[in-house]
Amino acid sequence: MTSNRYSPRTQIVLYGIHPVQETLKAGRRRIDEIYMTRDPAAYREVAVLLKKAGFPLTRVSEREILDVAGSPHHQGIAARVGPFPYADFSDILTRWAHRPGFLLLLDEIQDPVNLGSILRSAECFGASAVILTRDHAAQITPVVEKASAGATAHIATARVVNLVRAIEQIKEAGYWVYAANSTSVDTLYSLDLHSSIAFVLGSEGKGIRRLVKEKCDGSVSIPMAGKIGSLNVSHAATILLAEFRRRQMALGGIIPENLGS
Amino acid sequence: MTSNRYSPRTQIVLYGIHPVQETLKAGRRRIDEIYMTRDPAAYREVAVLLKKAGFPLTRVSEREILDVAGSPHHQGIAARVGPFPYADFSDILTRWAHRPGFLLLLDEIQDPVNLGSILRSAECFGASAVILTRDHAAQITPVVEKASAGATAHIATARVVNLVRAIEQIKEAGYWVYAANSTSVDTLYSLDLHSSIAFVLGSEGKGIRRLVKEKCDGSVSIPMAGKIGSLNVSHAATILLAEFRRRQMALGGIIPENLGS
Repeated sequence: MTSNRYSPRTQIVLYGIHPVQETLKAGRRRIDEIYMTRDPAAYREVAVLLKKAGFPLTRVSEREILDVAGSPHHQGIAARVGPFPYADFSDILTRWAHRPGFLLLLDEIQDPVNLGSILRSAECFGASAVILTRDHAAQITPVVEKASAGATAHIATARVVNLVRAIEQIKEAGYWVYAANSTSVDTLYSLDLHSSIAFVLGSEGKGIRRLVKEKCDGSVSIPMAGKIGSLNVSHAATILLAEFRRRQMALGGIIPENLGS
Repeated sequence: MTSNRYSPRTQIVLYGIHPVQETLKAGRRRIDEIYMTRDPAAYREVAVLLKKAGFPLTRVSEREILDVAGSPHHQGIAARVGPFPYADFSDILTRWAHRPGFLLLLDEIQDPVNLGSILRSAECFGASAVILTRDHAAQITPVVEKASAGATAHIATARVVNLVRAIEQIKEAGYWVYAANSTSVDTLYSLDLHSSIAFVLGSEGKGIRRLVKEKCDGSVSIPMAGKIGSLNVSHAATILLAEFRRRQMALGGIIPENLGS
């Protein structure tokens, strides 16, 4: 077992029980090898999945798994996998052309934990897909997958180079696109959520870029009280997601399915 | 300037623009000294507050501030301060005895970033107060204050040793107490939020302890879709907070003020 074999530079290694387990369950990504420090029975669901799928399993020491995972947050399990299976942006638009969809568009989100948390909530509330900017933004790495608690294995996530152009296409596909903006006089709760909706969230420091904001149909705020008046971006995204879900339920309307399903 | 002077073992040092700025604004905590690497004008609001209050300001080097703050996330500013001003639990009950209050009770939350995020959202949505368990739980440290984006300076936060006993007292004060529980058939949206409400949130790994759960009036879930079905605790808390705020607005009822104001 050479250290090179586990070099994170040459391959992708997921770590932690949820990323590995959900990747196994989703079955949409190449898995080369699973590493565990303990008996697979320790993670019952993983053990069953492994037995069914016949993936190679390597028992490793505590020290070795730290080398493999490159993080102390491995929980005794890691997996060497293929590249993250990003969804195709045009496929998403085609798939959601004739039924109500709910998209999150992330404009240069920087922090991997915020990105992972947003993807986790997006999966939990049945968002259709999440669109990331390819440049100047966190991409889907094992850190993000860990922070997402394995949600990245299920939620459809696409990348675009030009978010302004992407918003044009999303609007052409029948969506209403709103910028989440804490200073907007229109609130989330005054919004008609009957149709297909996309929300744009800006980066932690700079917010949504001007040209991106200008391309939106409007902007909405989340009504707050208090003095600091500033939510973390992943918490703002979660409120948008939960509210969309609540309204879908209240309407008894079509519940969006997760594209990644 | 000896290294001992800045030893985090002997004093509390807040770091980062928001914790320092909001602590200055709130004016409810002893501030012994402010450290900055750059001209105070770099943080206009802080400069004004400092001038008004006449706090001692020490210009330090990049290396020195790292010693002072004990974290790389100092943003060029730190403050040596007195102990965190926890609110008194009985004071909170007295203060909210005759008007609708909204409390969050945290049962052994472990992760400082989760705690900080919950406090941030609690402040943003005007929760009356947050109650922590004193043992086996993250307390309010500079890491938590940084993660809260300075919200800890404003939101009333009390600690209790015995959460079961505290829930009894909260119920006696006229509150309905609900455990947030993802498997509950009753949902947040079916809940009557006219009266004073307290929500209990459990720790990241173990959830709410049995005796704590049994003491509650009931439990509620947040309706979800998707496959992983598990929100981060700070995101679950944020949804409860935002929903309480939304209903208060919809009712045109009394908006809870932040006790810390």
